[in-house]
Amino acid sequence: MSSKPAIGFCGLGAMGFGMATHLIKSGYSVTGFDVWAPTLEKFKAAGGIPSTSLSESAKDKSFYVCMVATAQQAQEALFKEDGIVKALPQGATLLLCSTVPSAYAKSVGKELETVGRSDIFFIDSPVSGGTIRAADGTLSIMAGATPEAIEKGKVLLEVLSAPTKLFIVDGGIGAGSNMKMVHQVLAAIQILSVSEGFGFAARLGLNGKDVREKVIASEAWSWMFENRSMRTLSEDYFPGASAVGIIVKDTGIITSTARLLSFPAPLCTVAEQVYFSGIDRGWITHDDASLVRLWTSNPVSSIETTLSAEEKEAKLGLVIGLLAGIHFVAAAESIAFARHVGLPLPQLFELAAEAAGGSTMFKEFGTKMIAVLEGKSGEAADAKLVGDRLEKLKKAVEEAQAIKCPVYLGSSALNLLLQTEKDLGLASLLKLYA
Amino acid sequence: MSSKPAIGFCGLGAMGFGMATHLIKSGYSVTGFDVWAPTLEKFKAAGGIPSTSLSESAKDKSFYVCMVATAQQAQEALFKEDGIVKALPQGATLLLCSTVPSAYAKSVGKELETVGRSDIFFIDSPVSGGTIRAADGTLSIMAGATPEAIEKGKVLLEVLSAPTKLFIVDGGIGAGSNMKMVHQVLAAIQILSVSEGFGFAARLGLNGKDVREKVIASEAWSWMFENRSMRTLSEDYFPGASAVGIIVKDTGIITSTARLLSFPAPLCTVAEQVYFSGIDRGWITHDDASLVRLWTSNPVSSIETTLSAEEKEAKLGLVIGLLAGIHFVAAAESIAFARHVGLPLPQLFELAAEAAGGSTMFKEFGTKMIAVLEGKSGEAADAKLVGDRLEKLKKAVEEAQAIKCPVYLGSSALNLLLQTEKDLGLASLLKLYA
Repeated sequence: MSSKPAIGFCGLGAMGFGMATHLIKSGYSVTGFDVWAPTLEKFKAAGGIPSTSLSESAKDKSFYVCMVATAQQAQEALFKEDGIVKALPQGATLLLCSTVPSAYAKSVGKELETVGRSDIFFIDSPVSGGTIRAADGTLSIMAGATPEAIEKGKVLLEVLSAPTKLFIVDGGIGAGSNMKMVHQVLAAIQILSVSEGFGFAARLGLNGKDVREKVIASEAWSWMFENRSMRTLSEDYFPGASAVGIIVKDTGIITSTARLLSFPAPLCTVAEQVYFSGIDRGWITHDDASLVRLWTSNPVSSIETTLSAEEKEAKLGLVIGLLAGIHFVAAAESIAFARHVGLPLPQLFELAAEAAGGSTMFKEFGTKMIAVLEGKSGEAADAKLVGDRLEKLKKAVEEAQAIKCPVYLGSSALNLLLQTEKDLGLASLLKLYA
Repeated sequence: MSSKPAIGFCGLGAMGFGMATHLIKSGYSVTGFDVWAPTLEKFKAAGGIPSTSLSESAKDKSFYVCMVATAQQAQEALFKEDGIVKALPQGATLLLCSTVPSAYAKSVGKELETVGRSDIFFIDSPVSGGTIRAADGTLSIMAGATPEAIEKGKVLLEVLSAPTKLFIVDGGIGAGSNMKMVHQVLAAIQILSVSEGFGFAARLGLNGKDVREKVIASEAWSWMFENRSMRTLSEDYFPGASAVGIIVKDTGIITSTARLLSFPAPLCTVAEQVYFSGIDRGWITHDDASLVRLWTSNPVSSIETTLSAEEKEAKLGLVIGLLAGIHFVAAAESIAFARHVGLPLPQLFELAAEAAGGSTMFKEFGTKMIAVLEGKSGEAADAKLVGDRLEKLKKAVEEAQAIKCPVYLGSSALNLLLQTEKDLGLASLLKLYA
């Protein structure tokens, strides 16, 4: 055990605490910094060495993990006078695991040079997977850096991630954050689609339990739906497990980067406006599954269905058509954005299909979409598939209109599919983003 | 006076009452039907002949005006057993002035044949202009019919409309309703943009009076803004002058027709979802200007600006950039839809530029867009103009994101402009709708 290096750690929030204590369990000595005293107490109880000084937490540590909430926080923690970078020893390895804009990760690399610390092996390595996997050391990690830095940091990255879920992304610093960003395209859209689906279903008179059971077993499955819907049904919102504020932060990285790169991200853009309207209601710290309250103030699990079995089946079919249509376009939006920022598309597929962004639509159409973008597939063969999605989504949006139920994502996704009407090809859909 | 024919009239609502009483003032004998008794009392006091029987109101009337609220109401009033059509004399002229889907207007024409009443001269003639112009006989009217029916009905159409605002639309029955629909594309978007603009401005700390004054004098002017903003400032919402329910009905005609014809109408689609969310708040009978309450519960005219003169100017500039950007894309959406349904584009321009759909952006870019669609203009020359709009709108959307303020229309309009980034041409923008 004593051969394992001492590690410094900054940012013991829900994710960071799990990661840091997993490192302790794995036999590392971890010195943890956080601005919130009760967390430090808890960290000490878990076997960590608490520190109230950033420079102390970094002093003599050949490895350092920064897991703060935002780029602003990272910038201060890393570069202020008594911050991490100044205190790190020569040749230390620094992992930035926060979700930040790719441009910010790159700026850290540049600033390390500027301040004369190009000796530090810096790895842009955002993570995904939630608090349970953080504490288990089975996160997905998307790491971009020089080959030398990756070589240095690999041991730590491997401790924190599941065996098949460490993705070394080609492209150096910034590539990890880009990969996380395009994965979050799926997350940003699919988190809201959980609430839009349940909200639409409630307006149709469907009980939430029936909806969950049916959707999970259907082509409308998504990891987010399966995960969030438990909280929707039990109204486990305060605080729940993942706050509106968190996905808003990630959505903001997507849409601001998209604007910067002149990439249209229509569904993420719509999702962001709806998240803002949830924040306007005072829900920033509530679980993101609670956004179903934009559609109904009644618990969706208490709705008493008065529908006949046949009606119920038909209406559940509309909900599935809505969600699958949204997820289908979400897959296109994510993959097209990955292409736009120059990421390796098969790696995105491998990563997202089995991560929080996964959906049946992504799994079913993702490789086809990638083939189209890589020039390996004609569009004609897929026309019927796009047409199917369009027809099913159209039926759902028509019914929503008839009952005056907002379907922000569904109606916008349908508009994008309508733009492909000439040939209904995947290539036409993807071209909307090109 | 006695030479003027007797007229039957059905639907004495806010618009219909004004039209019917204007006909009385113009020397016609008008027999009016409505389901609501107090209206009939008022109609009698205004010199009309009230009737509680549809067939009585139609008997022996060589002219009949139907001005009910919806296609459903029209269908029942016209074709039920004791309805209008059965009671009309041979060769009567029937004006349907309600805003209905073009497909419905066409179905009336067909059904007249089916029931053996092809002797009736039927005119599809929706109106626009609001209650004051209805009562003044200065409405805009968009009339489609056979030349024979137009010839018969012209005298009445001229009494109801302003001299320069009677538009005989090529294309026969259905063309009038189509023209109204594409005009309402502008209305549906620009009514919501009033509230989005004031809401954004409120979040920026601007007083509503300053906003009104500045916007009206700027390139962000729209007829809707000038008209609605008076009610926004005085919170004249209950009932105000034009209910959320009315524009929702018209928006529904647009988006359902668009789906039917595979035309993407992205901004109208977004607007519709936001209207639905207003209805969810219980505002269906409130004035549409009251939608600003989605952004702020404080009266916008009572906001005390703490900004410096310079800051205030900069922030007013953002509001103008937001609105002008929305109106610019609204012009494209309306004109492209007109093209899609085969309407004469210069007539749309003439009509809308001086009607409730008018905006500085429509006036400035409408003829250029029409020229592009008619193949008379290259796109290259206009690239800078599109780029200007994009840059200004982008600044506004960026600021809205920074303060977590939803800008539903602005963000979607920006996405559409981003889709033209390759050449920033008007042709590229219009092609998104093709």
